[in-house]
Amino acid sequence: MFQAKIKADILKKMIDIVSPLVNEVKINVTPAGMSLRAVDPAHVAMVDLSIGASAFEEYKADETEIGIDLDKLASVMKLASSGDTVEMELDDVSNRLIIRIGNLTRKIGLIDTTGMTEPKVPNLNLPAKITVKASELLQGVKASESISDHIALTATEDAFELFAEGDTDTVNLKLPKDLLIELNAPEKCRSLFSVEYLSSMIKPVKGDQPLTIYLGNDNPIKLEFDFADKNARAIYLLAPRIESE
Amino acid sequence: MFQAKIKADILKKMIDIVSPLVNEVKINVTPAGMSLRAVDPAHVAMVDLSIGASAFEEYKADETEIGIDLDKLASVMKLASSGDTVEMELDDVSNRLIIRIGNLTRKIGLIDTTGMTEPKVPNLNLPAKITVKASELLQGVKASESISDHIALTATEDAFELFAEGDTDTVNLKLPKDLLIELNAPEKCRSLFSVEYLSSMIKPVKGDQPLTIYLGNDNPIKLEFDFADKNARAIYLLAPRIESE
Amino acid sequence: MFQAKIKADILKKMIDIVSPLVNEVKINVTPAGMSLRAVDPAHVAMVDLSIGASAFEEYKADETEIGIDLDKLASVMKLASSGDTVEMELDDVSNRLIIRIGNLTRKIGLIDTTGMTEPKVPNLNLPAKITVKASELLQGVKASESISDHIALTATEDAFELFAEGDTDTVNLKLPKDLLIELNAPEKCRSLFSVEYLSSMIKPVKGDQPLTIYLGNDNPIKLEFDFADKNARAIYLLAPRIESE
Repeated sequence: MFQAKIKADILKKMIDIVSPLVNEVKINVTPAGMSLRAVDPAHVAMVDLSIGASAFEEYKADETEIGIDLDKLASVMKLASSGDTVEMELDDVSNRLIIRIGNLTRKIGLIDTTGMTEPKVPNLNLPAKITVKASELLQGVKASESISDHIALTATEDAFELFAEGDTDTVNLKLPKDLLIELNAPEKCRSLFSVEYLSSMIKPVKGDQPLTIYLGNDNPIKLEFDFADKNARAIYLLAPRIESE
Repeated sequence: MFQAKIKADILKKMIDIVSPLVNEVKINVTPAGMSLRAVDPAHVAMVDLSIGASAFEEYKADETEIGIDLDKLASVMKLASSGDTVEMELDDVSNRLIIRIGNLTRKIGLIDTTGMTEPKVPNLNLPAKITVKASELLQGVKASESISDHIALTATEDAFELFAEGDTDTVNLKLPKDLLIELNAPEKCRSLFSVEYLSSMIKPVKGDQPLTIYLGNDNPIKLEFDFADKNARAIYLLAPRIESE
Repeated sequence: MFQAKIKADILKKMIDIVSPLVNEVKINVTPAGMSLRAVDPAHVAMVDLSIGASAFEEYKADETEIGIDLDKLASVMKLASSGDTVEMELDDVSNRLIIRIGNLTRKIGLIDTTGMTEPKVPNLNLPAKITVKASELLQGVKASESISDHIALTATEDAFELFAEGDTDTVNLKLPKDLLIELNAPEKCRSLFSVEYLSSMIKPVKGDQPLTIYLGNDNPIKLEFDFADKNARAIYLLAPRIESE
């Protein structure tokens, strides 16, 4: 059983966060809320998202799984205006998700979740923690897109830095401690990442919203941010690129 | 003789209404106003449009015909800003329509109307009449676009309903009587239509503007709406799709 | 040595003005300001642009040359918001231009200016001078785009006129003296020009900004306008089309 009402904007945000990595997802539903964990086809990035029951205007659920095509869900959500409330209901008999927006009822056929395994979150050694306004970081990543396909992120005691290098050009974004919301780097940490993945992971965090980064040495990066008034949370993991490439 | 001044927005609206169905049209000009009737190349839909002399700021005309390429007229109207007044004058000698927008004079070569016959409006038995806000109907039609190429419209004593069905998905828009501006259905009426045509026929009616629908059983649908402060009127007819398809 | 601070909007305007004609330019830097002169690959049009030292918020420079790819500069300037100030610095050692926008540092590899010769401004006999709002002229040029690839400009004592002719259609824009900011035509002048080039030369002048035209008989046209509060100036020259074509 699953029956819920939620602001359209929260569902749209969920789609923005997950769809750059995967199209078909298995959503785990429990009385405590909805969550999903998925890895992109290239096995380079993982998304771990949870929307607590408190993010919903109404929420009733047993434990169940909903396999859904996010492109389909996105096309339905385009029919909802900002501020609209959306009703969702699982129809176990016909195996469809019923979505109601105003007077419109849309039934979406669900996908089979049998083959969809839950990816495991690896154990990571990420000594540095940086909290930054998403817009600051996005500017550096965008600047890098035209000159390289990878980007180095470095955290020291005093600053968080982004560096990209092309044949003749370079990009450097240096954010000293006083421009960061938080910086905690007991040792110097530096890892290299794909510009494209990093860009698609920062874009869902809008404007001045804070984004927390966990960084290690030649280790995956972990990006974390809240939405829906802190009732929902997204975590991205992104594998590092090897320096010698 | 034809000489007239009109708000650019009214001419633009005329183009928006007619051009989804046909590009080349014969406009009938009389002292009472301008009108045109045309059928799309697939003979599935008809548009019947009239702009009364009272919709014009100035209007002087004998009976005459103007054959015009709407793409060309549309490219001229792009030069006019919202609120601009446009002057039109027929030059019989050179067989051109002279259009003046501010200090700009644009002469458009007319097309030969000899072969362009006037389509006849068929006799139709359409017992149900429904008046609805265009935006409400458009949401249902847009929702259907991604799952099916046809759509069923049903009117009963109590409600007006839209239904579309794909392989696994459905769309249902139910508008009970109290959400409609008018509903008059002495018997249940139901017909099936092309989503694509229906969509292009609702789009010219903006936002909350009322749209009147005449519906029968496996019969064409008639859509009617006013513009230019009720001094102009558009009627669409759309042939039904056969249910067994 | 070259070190300067300037409003991002002024640099963006420079790119808008020059990039329709050429991508790679040699910028001449002197203590008095920056300037460049370039001819398009077809040798039909020339741009001559100068930004005085007074247009900059800070400006320190010896005589030097900077060879730059405008596409690259444009991609960097997209990172600056309207109102942002941009710092530029020439790094002679690495042969790069260092651009700072906020905390972001972007180094652009310069291009070799050895083979880039300075085009000479030809002596022209252009008796007529017309100053017009750019938007008025742009409307006439836009209207011509769909019907012809060339356009005739005529100045008389009383009016400035634009005329284009297609197979069946014509465009005429007539601006009498009282609608012009200035008109000084001691004799009738008329020349023919490419619509495409003319269009790309008027577009950088926004809205109601004045544009000064120097016109002769079957002679190039000279277009001149200021920007950056009259601290910068752009001149375009465009070769005429031969009438008999």
